[in-house]
Amino acid sequence: MTKHSSSLAARPAVQSLVASKIREVANAGIGREDVAAFWFGEPDEVTPEFIRRAAAASLEAGETFYTHNLGIPELRETIAAYVTRLRRPTGADEIAVTNSGMSALMLLTQALVGPGDRVVVVTPVWPNLQEIPKILGAEVVKVPLAFDASGWRLDLDHLINALTPGTRAVYINSPNNPTGWTIDTAALRTILEHCRRHGIWILADDAYERLYYGAKAGTPAPSFLDIAAPEDRLVSANTFSKSWLMTGWRLGWILAPRTTLTDIGKLIEYNTCCAPVFVQRAGMVAIREGEPIIAHTLERYRGARDFLLPRLQALPGVEAASPPGAMYAFFRVRGVTDSLEFCKRLVAEQGLGLAPGAAFGPEGEGFVRWCFAAAEERLADGIARFERAIRRREAA
Amino acid sequence: MTKHSSSLAARPAVQSLVASKIREVANAGIGREDVAAFWFGEPDEVTPEFIRRAAAASLEAGETFYTHNLGIPELRETIAAYVTRLRRPTGADEIAVTNSGMSALMLLTQALVGPGDRVVVVTPVWPNLQEIPKILGAEVVKVPLAFDASGWRLDLDHLINALTPGTRAVYINSPNNPTGWTIDTAALRTILEHCRRHGIWILADDAYERLYYGAKAGTPAPSFLDIAAPEDRLVSANTFSKSWLMTGWRLGWILAPRTTLTDIGKLIEYNTCCAPVFVQRAGMVAIREGEPIIAHTLERYRGARDFLLPRLQALPGVEAASPPGAMYAFFRVRGVTDSLEFCKRLVAEQGLGLAPGAAFGPEGEGFVRWCFAAAEERLADGIARFERAIRRREAA
Repeated sequence: MTKHSSSLAARPAVQSLVASKIREVANAGIGREDVAAFWFGEPDEVTPEFIRRAAAASLEAGETFYTHNLGIPELRETIAAYVTRLRRPTGADEIAVTNSGMSALMLLTQALVGPGDRVVVVTPVWPNLQEIPKILGAEVVKVPLAFDASGWRLDLDHLINALTPGTRAVYINSPNNPTGWTIDTAALRTILEHCRRHGIWILADDAYERLYYGAKAGTPAPSFLDIAAPEDRLVSANTFSKSWLMTGWRLGWILAPRTTLTDIGKLIEYNTCCAPVFVQRAGMVAIREGEPIIAHTLERYRGARDFLLPRLQALPGVEAASPPGAMYAFFRVRGVTDSLEFCKRLVAEQGLGLAPGAAFGPEGEGFVRWCFAAAEERLADGIARFERAIRRREAA
Repeated sequence: MTKHSSSLAARPAVQSLVASKIREVANAGIGREDVAAFWFGEPDEVTPEFIRRAAAASLEAGETFYTHNLGIPELRETIAAYVTRLRRPTGADEIAVTNSGMSALMLLTQALVGPGDRVVVVTPVWPNLQEIPKILGAEVVKVPLAFDASGWRLDLDHLINALTPGTRAVYINSPNNPTGWTIDTAALRTILEHCRRHGIWILADDAYERLYYGAKAGTPAPSFLDIAAPEDRLVSANTFSKSWLMTGWRLGWILAPRTTLTDIGKLIEYNTCCAPVFVQRAGMVAIREGEPIIAHTLERYRGARDFLLPRLQALPGVEAASPPGAMYAFFRVRGVTDSLEFCKRLVAEQGLGLAPGAAFGPEGEGFVRWCFAAAEERLADGIARFERAIRRREAA
């Protein structure tokens, strides 16, 4: 019994996956009731009642059986109509319903990326997008955004140079978690043309497309879907989590070329089989009647952003720029070289829960992420705690 | 635009995944209202009301946020207590909650199996268990069960010989879908000892453990969990689908050594993040108050089996054995060499929906699967249709 028990760990590729540094900081606050927590990327409001009721009604009606791998037809049509309204004419046969946006990203990676493939990811970005390709045995190459007082920006030449012939896919999350960076249409065009030329797949993580402050209210962030054709090598992963305050429901979707979608149906069978019908019913109602929620959320977060950012910028040693999208401030703190340690001390000494920049890759070291999807009162309390920490640091 | 649009398909390993032949037969019946369908492996009863109510109450209470990767602590403890009662002392720290039993199998495969690894699978078996390792780039070696008038049996020497040193894992689904074959304790011991000697992981798909007709009511089928130690290289995938009539809920669990479970937590983050809290609440109530459901289901299926099998056996050219577990009759029909074609004709000519044996691998060719999780009246109608088809064949 010695030989077999000597290694009960998973295979090396899985052991070396990055565990969440955000979780590590949060664990340091377990058991404390007084923590003002802004570490997780989650809205602070419960899912609206009319959405929860749709699920309860479906359960009441006994919709507890297996359903189609690709989703119930009514929801696929509802999503297609939604994308058509937001972006371009889209058919239900380009849509697959998934058990979370996370699952959408995993399925797309399984479909497109195999052992030894080269995947380019624009960073800093939430860890999941960097780690998934590694589970499939791919090589991940990072292209970091640059930061200055005006905010985060993409060095387009750098990215194009990294997209060498033979690259299998480029992963872009815009609006970006954690930086809020949002790609512009000119960059979208350049990248699409380059990828067309070299047969490189584009995977767009569009989770935050409705949380965009750069246009008139209701206009989504620029997207590859605005300019690409249905026969382009473009796939988009999306989620109900942020737009409709449905994080805990685990519901998302994939938009992909019709040819690709057939294989994705098989992969859904082998990953989760299908999303629960009662969850899909909730998603249908969310899209059909949920635009007022999106408007409300966007206004709330815009207010929160405009409350938080000037107050951060006024603190000594803090470099912060107002993000055009998403729901995070990702800012630099002078002298911080170990953001994990810094955030653990914030929890211990001030009861303030922020996410360490290093959680998003080495490019994020020295930075801190603050999720501002919260009420002004809570943000004010957080700022007061943060200010105490900064004043103490500066005095030391 | 010609180069990139020339291949919109997924990578070859994914293209070559087997699409469901059961689905192909079912598609042939789309639009027909008169089909007596026994093709899918699904109970015909809706989830009991007290389970559905627990989910509705959780939704009502606003439990719509993210939760722990490994599941809410109360459910992990409930599952651990359940396994302790059924099998051996088990801690909550050996349990991970997953978004379906299917997801449990995918996660375990991601954790254990990498490109080029050798995986041995006992077949015929539902396609998912054969296809998942291929998504990860593994080589799948099959060890077929043998069939005769007394039923399906495992050639243990054959299996042990196939488990050569360097084999990464053996996948065993018992009670087995589609054959109902159920492993005995002597075979469990031999396999466990051999795998200990060579450091081979055992993946037990225990989905049907409570659907076992070979013991006194309520006793589960024999399992590796009865004889293995917590430090053995043994992982078990399970599901709420069959035991508690919860197919559409997508809720399952993993039992794994504590060391392995840490890595599985990371993989859950990168696959689905977590199961919905309101679904987990339903699962908790199911385990705590659901033993009468299991007893009711078992009695019902035993009755269905004992109704169906003699009638099948009485038909000319049909070779069928009464299965000790699961909810399927998997029987041979004389002269059938293309079970897919045969099942499509059954739909077209008799409005009878059965699953082709070839759906479970070439070893299943010549056989047909009949799910008997149905009321006697429906089974009688199905038998009448099947008899007409058989009489016509024999007359031809």
